[in-house]
Amino acid sequence: MLVKEEVGSKERVYVEDVKKAHGDEVLVRGWVHKIHDLGKFGFVHLRDKTGIIQLVADKEILKELRAEMSVEVVGTKVENSKALGGIELQIKDLKVLGKTYYDMLPIAVTQGKTKVHLETELDHRGISLRAPKKRAIFKVQEEIVTAFRDYLRGEKFSEIHTPKILGTGTEGGSEVFTVNYFDRRAFLAQSPQFYKQMMVGAGFERVFEIGHAYRAELHNTWRHLNEYVSLDVEMGFIKDENDVMDLEEGFIRYLFDYLRKTCTNELKMYEIELPEKVEIPRIPLSEAHKILLGKYSKKSPVGNIDAEGEILFSKYVKETYGSDFVFLTEYPVAKRPMYAMPDGKGMTRSFDLIYKGLEITTGGQRIHDYEMLKENIIKFGLNPEDFDFYIENFRYGMPPHGGFAIGLERLTMKILNLENIRESTLLPRDMKRMTP
Amino acid sequence: MLVKEEVGSKERVYVEDVKKAHGDEVLVRGWVHKIHDLGKFGFVHLRDKTGIIQLVADKEILKELRAEMSVEVVGTKVENSKALGGIELQIKDLKVLGKTYYDMLPIAVTQGKTKVHLETELDHRGISLRAPKKRAIFKVQEEIVTAFRDYLRGEKFSEIHTPKILGTGTEGGSEVFTVNYFDRRAFLAQSPQFYKQMMVGAGFERVFEIGHAYRAELHNTWRHLNEYVSLDVEMGFIKDENDVMDLEEGFIRYLFDYLRKTCTNELKMYEIELPEKVEIPRIPLSEAHKILLGKYSKKSPVGNIDAEGEILFSKYVKETYGSDFVFLTEYPVAKRPMYAMPDGKGMTRSFDLIYKGLEITTGGQRIHDYEMLKENIIKFGLNPEDFDFYIENFRYGMPPHGGFAIGLERLTMKILNLENIRESTLLPRDMKRMTP
Repeated sequence: MLVKEEVGSKERVYVEDVKKAHGDEVLVRGWVHKIHDLGKFGFVHLRDKTGIIQLVADKEILKELRAEMSVEVVGTKVENSKALGGIELQIKDLKVLGKTYYDMLPIAVTQGKTKVHLETELDHRGISLRAPKKRAIFKVQEEIVTAFRDYLRGEKFSEIHTPKILGTGTEGGSEVFTVNYFDRRAFLAQSPQFYKQMMVGAGFERVFEIGHAYRAELHNTWRHLNEYVSLDVEMGFIKDENDVMDLEEGFIRYLFDYLRKTCTNELKMYEIELPEKVEIPRIPLSEAHKILLGKYSKKSPVGNIDAEGEILFSKYVKETYGSDFVFLTEYPVAKRPMYAMPDGKGMTRSFDLIYKGLEITTGGQRIHDYEMLKENIIKFGLNPEDFDFYIENFRYGMPPHGGFAIGLERLTMKILNLENIRESTLLPRDMKRMTP
Repeated sequence: MLVKEEVGSKERVYVEDVKKAHGDEVLVRGWVHKIHDLGKFGFVHLRDKTGIIQLVADKEILKELRAEMSVEVVGTKVENSKALGGIELQIKDLKVLGKTYYDMLPIAVTQGKTKVHLETELDHRGISLRAPKKRAIFKVQEEIVTAFRDYLRGEKFSEIHTPKILGTGTEGGSEVFTVNYFDRRAFLAQSPQFYKQMMVGAGFERVFEIGHAYRAELHNTWRHLNEYVSLDVEMGFIKDENDVMDLEEGFIRYLFDYLRKTCTNELKMYEIELPEKVEIPRIPLSEAHKILLGKYSKKSPVGNIDAEGEILFSKYVKETYGSDFVFLTEYPVAKRPMYAMPDGKGMTRSFDLIYKGLEITTGGQRIHDYEMLKENIIKFGLNPEDFDFYIENFRYGMPPHGGFAIGLERLTMKILNLENIRESTLLPRDMKRMTP
């Protein structure tokens, strides 16, 4: 540690390191997690970022303490097989660092499974996240992001940051938020789609971005957010969309290995065993439609699959291939954006990735030829002039390319088998929620 | 490489790896950087993400080529001391991957120093970034971000993602963009200040965020952007603001070592030698004012230092301490936000970091006591009820904490001695620019 946290001659020890720390006396810091008052003395659980440890406090100290205050403690290590982790600290000195000002905690932090309503939890995020099991979700999320970045940097991808304030709605769609930008109207980016393609062409060849995306969708469901973190990828010099699927499949494999190593405790808290083997079947949408109809009498909308269909088809894939994932391929031209590469048979070289019954990715090969792109924009009833800044890039030798985007909160939710996407969002934004 | 880029039996070789690649024949991909037609044959420079290599092309091939088209080439390696990197490729097979559609390139990519106006460069980002020296800026920027993340994760910080759509203007200021959020008015975050503090209290203890921040400032200068990337840090259980400055100083040291290793070529292109030793003086603002007045007859605004003052004072610090950096400390209460920790003498425990004449950071210790914060909000003429979701966090044992934020584009600009912050922004947003 470069930053010493000293008090007098003592350096702070994190709870997870107490056992191996030198000396009999250690200094710890954290929050009062639980107080068990036995009259003449009591047991106190102290919680820090890394874990929980038992303190033994006398009467005088006990009466100073309230749940969730933050304290600094110098204590003597005592082995105790009944204590958490087999060790406790006899308090020698205790200093209150952060006082409390409440009559009753809005949420009980000590319960593994919070019993309050999700909305109450979200209203009091600063306190509900103190429950180790809740905070664990974001440890997993952080490591997903780290794995994504490490994997792609290892594959020669460059990390970029593109603007979220746009002069034109990204894909000409209607579900965009408007911003009052000085005397003009601007839009919040629905995705970095145009910019990541631009950067492939600008010579980065392979790029990724971890950033917010905005959707003004009028859905308030367990799987929709109006602001989310998009893990975006775009790759130049591909052969076709299979290169893009190979990349994503490689990432999922890397991710699961990485999470098993870095989030052992967190996965255990949620009773998750990540599969050792990841082999993702690639199935054309039309075939999925047939299977859904034949096996489950489930009709699908034209050129797509609905939420119920995603769940049923995932069930089928799990039973048939033993996979939690499936790539749906060959979406029809009319149902994909104007930049999707047609395959010459009325379909596009695009795909969705479904994971445990939920779409977590849309991707595919893009059109890279200037004339073809312009024609396609016109075919879609759009005006090429509105996309001038975008199509300009295609004049100068844009290589074949493609990419995908993963919704970070959706991936986190599904890995941990959470029920609502808001559980895997630090501070969600939806139609009804703008605070905290 | 997990993703094989094969053509027939051949795997793509990046230009930087051609020399060490096995076999006499290699397959490369990239853009036609330069064509030197000698009649019967010619030299072609091929540029990929990693470098430039010379190709030898015959007449037939030459007439197919145009500058900036993207191609795939199979060629035979020939040592040639006159060629770039001492090696060239005799073209055996060439395939055009991305055609060109232009009469004249808007910007000449081959010039090291582009001679066009910055605005033209920004208008044509997809082509201007093809100049290796321009793209090098973003390699350095990417490695700054990587160093920031690696350093902080090594210090037990957690990466977080907080919302940019807010129900309340972050700090009650006026320079915020408004968003039409369904039937309500929302704001774009000026900083993740409140949220990073909340997450320290929520048990993460130490957090960082790499994300966009928005300022609706009416400045159109060489150092202002309306959308920028903020490298934000917040740390709990500190003693005072010096812990925060120690952390930032430690980061700068780590960063410079890291850039020397990872951006050797890029730093060379800009003729930058990063100092081996970083020791940053900490000077109270009042003392800086005296020095500016005494030494340069420069008057400063009350409780601050202006752009000219920053430049002059940096000059003084460089001459006196040999440092490109200086922490200005002890800013007066009236000039800092309501959450800045007072030092009991009318000043705050806050600081700015000036680097080569430009402020790149504001930071400090924050108020952590609930009553003190509420009183301070009232003192500032604000209404605590407007900050309910923020001050609620201070009821439950908020530990002493502080943090800082670095403007990524400013840091990049100053490291490379660029003249305008737009040069270190992939796609800048300012009062006049919303595209590309």
